[in-house]
Amino acid sequence: MTDIFAKFEGLSRAASHLMSVAPRNPFDVVIERPLSATIGLIEGRETLLFGTNNYLGLSQCPEAISAAVKTLKEEGVGTTGSRIANGTYGLHRQLEKKLAAFFRRRHCIIFSTGYQANLGCISALAGKDDILFIDADSHASIYDGSRLGNAQVIRFRHNDPADLDKRLNRVKDHPGAKLIVIEGVYSMTGNVAPVRAFAEVKKKHGAWLLVDEAHSFGVLGENGRGVAEQDGCEEDVDFVVGTFSKSLGTIGGYCVSNHDGVEMIRLASRPYMFTASLPPDIIAASAAALEALQAQPHLRAQLTQNAGQLHAGLKKLGLSVSQHVSPVVAVTLPDIPTAAGFWNRLLELGVYVNLSLPPATPDERPLLRCSVMAAHSPAQIDTALASFAKAAQDLGVLTA
Amino acid sequence: MTDIFAKFEGLSRAASHLMSVAPRNPFDVVIERPLSATIGLIEGRETLLFGTNNYLGLSQCPEAISAAVKTLKEEGVGTTGSRIANGTYGLHRQLEKKLAAFFRRRHCIIFSTGYQANLGCISALAGKDDILFIDADSHASIYDGSRLGNAQVIRFRHNDPADLDKRLNRVKDHPGAKLIVIEGVYSMTGNVAPVRAFAEVKKKHGAWLLVDEAHSFGVLGENGRGVAEQDGCEEDVDFVVGTFSKSLGTIGGYCVSNHDGVEMIRLASRPYMFTASLPPDIIAASAAALEALQAQPHLRAQLTQNAGQLHAGLKKLGLSVSQHVSPVVAVTLPDIPTAAGFWNRLLELGVYVNLSLPPATPDERPLLRCSVMAAHSPAQIDTALASFAKAAQDLGVLTA
Repeated sequence: MTDIFAKFEGLSRAASHLMSVAPRNPFDVVIERPLSATIGLIEGRETLLFGTNNYLGLSQCPEAISAAVKTLKEEGVGTTGSRIANGTYGLHRQLEKKLAAFFRRRHCIIFSTGYQANLGCISALAGKDDILFIDADSHASIYDGSRLGNAQVIRFRHNDPADLDKRLNRVKDHPGAKLIVIEGVYSMTGNVAPVRAFAEVKKKHGAWLLVDEAHSFGVLGENGRGVAEQDGCEEDVDFVVGTFSKSLGTIGGYCVSNHDGVEMIRLASRPYMFTASLPPDIIAASAAALEALQAQPHLRAQLTQNAGQLHAGLKKLGLSVSQHVSPVVAVTLPDIPTAAGFWNRLLELGVYVNLSLPPATPDERPLLRCSVMAAHSPAQIDTALASFAKAAQDLGVLTA
Repeated sequence: MTDIFAKFEGLSRAASHLMSVAPRNPFDVVIERPLSATIGLIEGRETLLFGTNNYLGLSQCPEAISAAVKTLKEEGVGTTGSRIANGTYGLHRQLEKKLAAFFRRRHCIIFSTGYQANLGCISALAGKDDILFIDADSHASIYDGSRLGNAQVIRFRHNDPADLDKRLNRVKDHPGAKLIVIEGVYSMTGNVAPVRAFAEVKKKHGAWLLVDEAHSFGVLGENGRGVAEQDGCEEDVDFVVGTFSKSLGTIGGYCVSNHDGVEMIRLASRPYMFTASLPPDIIAASAAALEALQAQPHLRAQLTQNAGQLHAGLKKLGLSVSQHVSPVVAVTLPDIPTAAGFWNRLLELGVYVNLSLPPATPDERPLLRCSVMAAHSPAQIDTALASFAKAAQDLGVLTA
């Protein structure tokens, strides 16, 4: 009997090695319970959360909680069916309408997770006769969507419209549709895509453009519609994909578009069709959070200010921080043992961030991925910065 | 600019044709709201639900609703993070422990949807040097998991251990691990797998066996552990996959196993790692529903009785019903127009069932897929049967 787990030996050794450096497993942290948007109980201690995607703090939005409670009592805990069977309730349709209106698009399709939104849209839209162009630093869900579909896949250099242009030129006589997939903000580094420049390349080549605004929805743009809004090029973006599990604080995914054809995803996309729909209370909470996001533009302003404070503070400490100022602020460290030790020391000091290791990170270098919330107070950010300074000193990172 | 939607033209024509037969789109039904487990408001009318996966009626379980309400107030509407980052709360760990105990297995891993559980387990467990054996009638999530992974994929005839044995013989010298994937109950037909016979084939060939008990968890077996329990061969099943969105009434998926190696899925499986974890209220509701399932074995007995009543009643009407008596009772119809017309007539008569069309159905024949709940009263089943009789008469199905 061949050991089916033998394939994991390398990974298992790497994990053991990591644990020999940092006594805690960075991928197995338990938040015993959240005490607020910004504080969680970890190992029985109040810990500052600087490693979530809860940008607007809406996971604790009172209106979202009330809407969910009301809906639970009226409609129960789940639909037990897919959207194409018994899993479309009135609330699902209403949220699709609300999101379409928010994005000023004619169509919106909700998926059960953000992961499945990318999987479902990309695999359905790019068919066997088409070519898919994806950014080399794409999220796993984009890679998996590419793999699930039948299109030829071409990767271009991260955030490099000129490289994409070159690659599109090489296949300019190919008769299939060309679908370009980028992200508004890249989750690991906080890098912001030059969406307008990508849109120009798209137009030049008669291609289609899908932008995953997962980390920018509710965060960037005057109305929170993301990087495309900020860049003033929404009309050139054919499909916007995003998630509820970041700025809205719940779970789920969506795709919005002005193209009528997008509705065919409902009959052609297996990750849409063959999965249970979201429970009604999650839908109601997402709708209430969307309303809160629209009613409280000051949250976005506060977030921007907080992101600036953390980014500037880390930079001032002499750490190698990400290029762009966005709610994701990544600190690059030279090697995995240092990064793991730094991460562990921060947690001891009461600050939780994400440890991100290659191959999930660019350039084979480990990152401490910090994320900022509108709900963080300036004092909490100062506390986090002081912990970073202390950890850097303890580990001798800055003298290296 | 090549039309990216041109690939959907055939599908679009088929959908239009369907709508010319049945005035309603069977894949776009809206339950305005559920009034109870068994009744939903469709087109403003109270409609009997005979097309859900809510086998035990637990989508409306009062204890699950209370647990979700309490948790919403305490922990908010979502985690905004993946299980490997900030998305593991104490409740996620507790539910994993409860499920492991229920299945008497050492390990349990929760996924954000049942679809992602199959995707994540199958793609991670069967590697590039391995061979995956899947039933020809497998659910979309198993097909997609096969596609996402790197293993060679071999299909065997539906529910045919002898055919699997033959195919395993042909590759008996292949050095890789061999993973067999079957379902306990097949979702479209209600066919029950001969799990014990498959387990014998598995042992003979030194292969591994994964059983998706999505439609049998909580439904079959003395304690509701599924077909493997019913067949008395649980020790030969290496991995059990299932979902919360059927008998538990919520949303989510799981994998349980006694093999320690299964824990590596947490570090190796992209559909586990790169998606937001389930909101705490869903986890709490699932745990409460699991307790209800255990505390109320009479629900399973009632379900079996109801399934027998519907199956026998449809058979007595002269309709072509599925071979096995299970909570999924499928009526095979000769062609798509007849099936669509029948489905539409049933809805007009106040009974919702699922219309299932090829290629999602076996033998290229359309099905009316009915499902039974423990919550159905004998009178509701009689009403449904009377509607079937009326529709069959109106459509001349029985005289054909």
